[in-house]
Amino acid sequence: MSSSTSQTTSRAGRLTLPVEKGMDAQVAELLERLQADAVRNSDGTELPEIVNKLATKIYQTYFVGRGDQDWAQTHPRELTRIYLMSERTPALADGELSIDLMTNWFVDQVYPDTDCDVERWWQVIDRTTGDVIAPGAWHVDPADLSVTMDQAQAGHVYTVGFLAVQRWDPTQMYNYLTNGWADDPQRIKESPYDIRYPQTWQHVRHALDQWLADNPQVDVVRFTTFFYHFTLVYGSDGTERFVDWFGYSASVSVPAMEAFEKRFGYPLQAEDFIDEGWYNSPFRVPRKSFRDWVSFQHEFVTSRMAELVEQVHAAGREAMMFLGDNWIGTEPYGPHFAHTGIDAVVGSVGSGATCRMISDIPGVRYTEGRLLPYFFPHVFYPGGDPVTEANASWLAARRAIVRSPLDRIGYGGYLSLAVQHPEFVDRMEEIVNEFRAIHAAAAGQRPIATGPRVAIVNCWGALRSWQTHMVAHALHYRQAYSYLGVLESLSGLPLQVDFLSFDDIRNGVPEGVEVLINVGAAGTAFSGGSEWADERVTSAVRRFVAAGGGLVGVGDPTAHPARGAVYQLSDVLGVDRELGWGLSTHRPMHTSDHHFVTLDLSSRLDVGEGTPDVFCASATTTVLAAHHEQVDLAVNQFGCGRAVYLAGLPYSSQNARLLHRALAWAGHREDAFTTWTSSDVRAEVAVYPHSDRLLVINNSLDQVTTTVSTPTTVREVHMEAAGHLWFDLELHPLDIPG
Amino acid sequence: MSSSTSQTTSRAGRLTLPVEKGMDAQVAELLERLQADAVRNSDGTELPEIVNKLATKIYQTYFVGRGDQDWAQTHPRELTRIYLMSERTPALADGELSIDLMTNWFVDQVYPDTDCDVERWWQVIDRTTGDVIAPGAWHVDPADLSVTMDQAQAGHVYTVGFLAVQRWDPTQMYNYLTNGWADDPQRIKESPYDIRYPQTWQHVRHALDQWLADNPQVDVVRFTTFFYHFTLVYGSDGTERFVDWFGYSASVSVPAMEAFEKRFGYPLQAEDFIDEGWYNSPFRVPRKSFRDWVSFQHEFVTSRMAELVEQVHAAGREAMMFLGDNWIGTEPYGPHFAHTGIDAVVGSVGSGATCRMISDIPGVRYTEGRLLPYFFPHVFYPGGDPVTEANASWLAARRAIVRSPLDRIGYGGYLSLAVQHPEFVDRMEEIVNEFRAIHAAAAGQRPIATGPRVAIVNCWGALRSWQTHMVAHALHYRQAYSYLGVLESLSGLPLQVDFLSFDDIRNGVPEGVEVLINVGAAGTAFSGGSEWADERVTSAVRRFVAAGGGLVGVGDPTAHPARGAVYQLSDVLGVDRELGWGLSTHRPMHTSDHHFVTLDLSSRLDVGEGTPDVFCASATTTVLAAHHEQVDLAVNQFGCGRAVYLAGLPYSSQNARLLHRALAWAGHREDAFTTWTSSDVRAEVAVYPHSDRLLVINNSLDQVTTTVSTPTTVREVHMEAAGHLWFDLELHPLDIPG
Repeated sequence: MSSSTSQTTSRAGRLTLPVEKGMDAQVAELLERLQADAVRNSDGTELPEIVNKLATKIYQTYFVGRGDQDWAQTHPRELTRIYLMSERTPALADGELSIDLMTNWFVDQVYPDTDCDVERWWQVIDRTTGDVIAPGAWHVDPADLSVTMDQAQAGHVYTVGFLAVQRWDPTQMYNYLTNGWADDPQRIKESPYDIRYPQTWQHVRHALDQWLADNPQVDVVRFTTFFYHFTLVYGSDGTERFVDWFGYSASVSVPAMEAFEKRFGYPLQAEDFIDEGWYNSPFRVPRKSFRDWVSFQHEFVTSRMAELVEQVHAAGREAMMFLGDNWIGTEPYGPHFAHTGIDAVVGSVGSGATCRMISDIPGVRYTEGRLLPYFFPHVFYPGGDPVTEANASWLAARRAIVRSPLDRIGYGGYLSLAVQHPEFVDRMEEIVNEFRAIHAAAAGQRPIATGPRVAIVNCWGALRSWQTHMVAHALHYRQAYSYLGVLESLSGLPLQVDFLSFDDIRNGVPEGVEVLINVGAAGTAFSGGSEWADERVTSAVRRFVAAGGGLVGVGDPTAHPARGAVYQLSDVLGVDRELGWGLSTHRPMHTSDHHFVTLDLSSRLDVGEGTPDVFCASATTTVLAAHHEQVDLAVNQFGCGRAVYLAGLPYSSQNARLLHRALAWAGHREDAFTTWTSSDVRAEVAVYPHSDRLLVINNSLDQVTTTVSTPTTVREVHMEAAGHLWFDLELHPLDIPG
Repeated sequence: MSSSTSQTTSRAGRLTLPVEKGMDAQVAELLERLQADAVRNSDGTELPEIVNKLATKIYQTYFVGRGDQDWAQTHPRELTRIYLMSERTPALADGELSIDLMTNWFVDQVYPDTDCDVERWWQVIDRTTGDVIAPGAWHVDPADLSVTMDQAQAGHVYTVGFLAVQRWDPTQMYNYLTNGWADDPQRIKESPYDIRYPQTWQHVRHALDQWLADNPQVDVVRFTTFFYHFTLVYGSDGTERFVDWFGYSASVSVPAMEAFEKRFGYPLQAEDFIDEGWYNSPFRVPRKSFRDWVSFQHEFVTSRMAELVEQVHAAGREAMMFLGDNWIGTEPYGPHFAHTGIDAVVGSVGSGATCRMISDIPGVRYTEGRLLPYFFPHVFYPGGDPVTEANASWLAARRAIVRSPLDRIGYGGYLSLAVQHPEFVDRMEEIVNEFRAIHAAAAGQRPIATGPRVAIVNCWGALRSWQTHMVAHALHYRQAYSYLGVLESLSGLPLQVDFLSFDDIRNGVPEGVEVLINVGAAGTAFSGGSEWADERVTSAVRRFVAAGGGLVGVGDPTAHPARGAVYQLSDVLGVDRELGWGLSTHRPMHTSDHHFVTLDLSSRLDVGEGTPDVFCASATTTVLAAHHEQVDLAVNQFGCGRAVYLAGLPYSSQNARLLHRALAWAGHREDAFTTWTSSDVRAEVAVYPHSDRLLVINNSLDQVTTTVSTPTTVREVHMEAAGHLWFDLELHPLDIPG
């Protein structure tokens, strides 16, 4: 990844600040003090005139799919659509059954598209049998937004999958409702329109050209974003009901589905999107029709993106994509993304994993991470403590940035709020300078991988690199954090991390991979679910491990209860899970208090929510941690290879180190482990052999004294809270400011 | 159920004591003091001569299937068989693979039957694909007890299901190894022989006749037991590896399987018994072939039992069956059991549920419960506290005995140990007298059911009445106690309890049932697993509830993830379980602190191990208890009916009351609930309208003062620790000793 064109010294640039009107003096002073080289507006703010006089680049938000509400109002048939399901409605008696479509949906946002060919595009399904009810046996009542069946069966449950018009863009709706814009006569409810319709597409292209012409001051067009919003639907109470940051439900339209059928040779049904009511959540093992749809829309979206980017470039500007909002189909790790010509991607850095999700995107000229906290009132209130949030965000991001540099950072929100917290501005200045200093000292390059090459295998593979177990961006979910910790740990470890799909390993684990990782809950796309019923997959991994490879399983790895095992690779992992069928089996547990994997554990192992009822399935298994006779951590030898099982791994410095050791052990790399490692788990080491440099970072807010080792020397290193230090490879200190 | 013939007054009889040689004076004194009317020997003890002079009945143990070791030694081909599976053995490379059969089995107990037609009765299965490997592609090596495959595939896992000879009876083996009989030259390892072989059957019949003639002093032949031992197999280390108190694995033989094929028209395979290595655990949803096998063996075993019982009766004796050990096929709740003519069943009372399992057996003249503790050294050591165990056992048993009287009680073990604890003998005397007094005052009758008629529905139905969620008799299992508490609670509640199979409800819930109960973990025979995929089952229950019936679900009721729901009756229960596919859905939770169901909760609801990730699936659901936004207790209205969900229900007085209330509410019986109820959950009420009597029992070791209500009056009642009191129906105290 090359660095951005506008960077000059290690003490300037690489920083985008949000600015606003009415504080010109402060803006100028802050830009100078922080050496920002770009400014942007935020939702609800406008750029002040002064920015045109400052030597900064100007980013401006551009809304492709909802920027022109005159167009939206005059072309109501070309608004975007979404597939929704009614509630599961039981028939209490034989005979007529009326199913209300909108019981749990927000009619201000979505309403049933009764004008389409409902017999073709809607589906009524008996969820008791799975049978589709023939279109002739039901009819739509447009007046009360319901579907009536003539001959429902008592005791059966029915649903209607229906196409709906999205008449309110979800992000604009969120901002509108959150900020109480109903009282502001200047605000309207913005409807999104669909470029799948040729008229709308031509209009979008013309509008962009016009806008570029009208806004010569803009250097960077910040697309927010393109065409299809992730799934975000409100309930009838006007609050969030369903969100899926990866959801394609709102990428549908009749012309798109018709084009799909021509391309793929089979017709789509409502159920392909409704998915029994799970709406193809990324936690679902994806079915073929959904994977085909993702491919289909990715190709379409990126081809249209490319045309818009070309317009931007033709106008002499840069094109930047915001990672989020209407990003569906862009798939930054998809095969066509790099062909869009987009210059940059900017996204919010909520964690190390989200940072890597941005910084690892292949094929863009530069990446920018928006650090937290946003300058919003919920943090920046009088008496608030934005510095604590800034420190947590920076420490999480810095681990990842060291492994895979971002080219730029930035902030978002209202600068007028930030300047009321001078202690925050001081800390922001330090962070910005530290970012620049590390970037300069590392020359924007990655340090070497000192550990084994690892690959996470799940149903999504490279397409969703660093995006596994995310629900809505970096939102915390009780049911996900114990798995997400694996990604968060990896984001800052000195390892090459690949993401493989089951297709990638079906006929053999690719050359070069040393350790496979399978992490997630049973039945999800992340552990793999029914993919483990495929003997090509299981035998490929067995052969890989038998030949000396490593397997690290977290949660319910290889889970698919069948053929006498719950974990299909229970023999490799050395553990399996009891679902009740084998309660009467005595399974001896060989334990050990001392093992390479746990050498740096100084407090009790934290497996988060953990996984219940895991037992030893092999006489060769050694259990390193257990509770109430349930395995939390175990290691096993299988043929020439090794496996490690962990019941869960929420992120912490201790757990990141535990994973690091587990991967090293599984990859037979334990002999060299202490080389290029710090003895204290709060510190991590990055090695840059080409520049003869070594970086030690303190991921904690404690002062840390740790031993750092290289092949030739050992040194005690003292670091300030959250500090970092540079050395040459002989561990002589280097005087690099930062 | 009529009472035993030998009972006379309320102060004598109904008691069986174990006696032994060498303590004649004490035996006579104790029999007189406790007014025992029967004596028995125990394993390893002989009856003293003195018993012939005392006015008591004499029970003597009789071992049908292993009593004659000369026969066993001279007929090695007629020993019982067992189906076992080898370890799951991976092939690390293509080509020859040798699978050791005995890696985890105890060769002193079982050894491969290499003399049978192994190509017909053994099976090698590729557990990676599920394919059976053709017999020609593998061969047995009898010398090293292994099977060798010629062309195993690298990365695949194989098992061998093989028939083995049981050369050591499991119970005798247990006693032998536990008591160190190896040093005793008088002890031999007893092999069990199979009456399926005509020679052996004739021998067994002759031997019984001879024994009856040789032992004229015996009044009651205590069969311990009949022909097939439950599955109990030791591992290669000579300790228990696998136990299944309901297991039929050791009921197999070539002639039986051949007879089965003639009878049922299809051949059995090893896999019908191996069951992927789960051996048809009662927690498995039973497959047709296994259910057919149970029927087949039940019919055979009971027909042979009937012949032996006839011999006993012809000799003028009574026949009593011990519930356990070689009881497989007897199925006391099976359709043929009552036709055996057996006079009595005796079993160990480890809990209220095990007590009901004995006392509810239909078709026997009397039942006897052996109370705990056994007079064994692990309790009756110097300084031991047998009284505490006796109290716990008695309070659990008494609840059940009050609802469904046992006709007799007894004790087991070594009397010589018991007499060294005079405080225990005192307490035993009190318990025995209390048992007799209650039996007399209630005239051996059941009190009326004051609550709704309830039915537990699971895969086993009436066949395994009161036997659900048991692993090895009353052994505690962490994964079962939270469900077993439902049965334990019911064992002492004033309700009629039926046990229904899915076949019983497939075409409609039977008339008379007011509340259905479904309890257990997902995928087990007790919650029902794939049975809930049958729309006849789900629609029958929906219609039942919609018409006013009740449904109480505990744990994972109706669980079978399919068609958009994990709990197939999520709409009825008002809750469902999140497996990860809907994490992004916001589900509002309507809670209430006040509800009929929870009125008697005085401390935090205890759901035991509980059930994670249960959420509200209906807008009509009211959540009464939750933790971290996961439902622990909820109620829902569905049509005219009601449902209650509980995440778990370990037994306690509070939880028994909670279940009582939940059932009353679900059955629309809440208005009359306080009638015939005590205000304090530690006390329970039994009503005998025909004799104008009412019994209040204190299930605790606390003094309890409680309000008791009838339709006409209310009274405060004070009870001593563990006490009981009688009243007439107007709540006037009755002076009944006890």
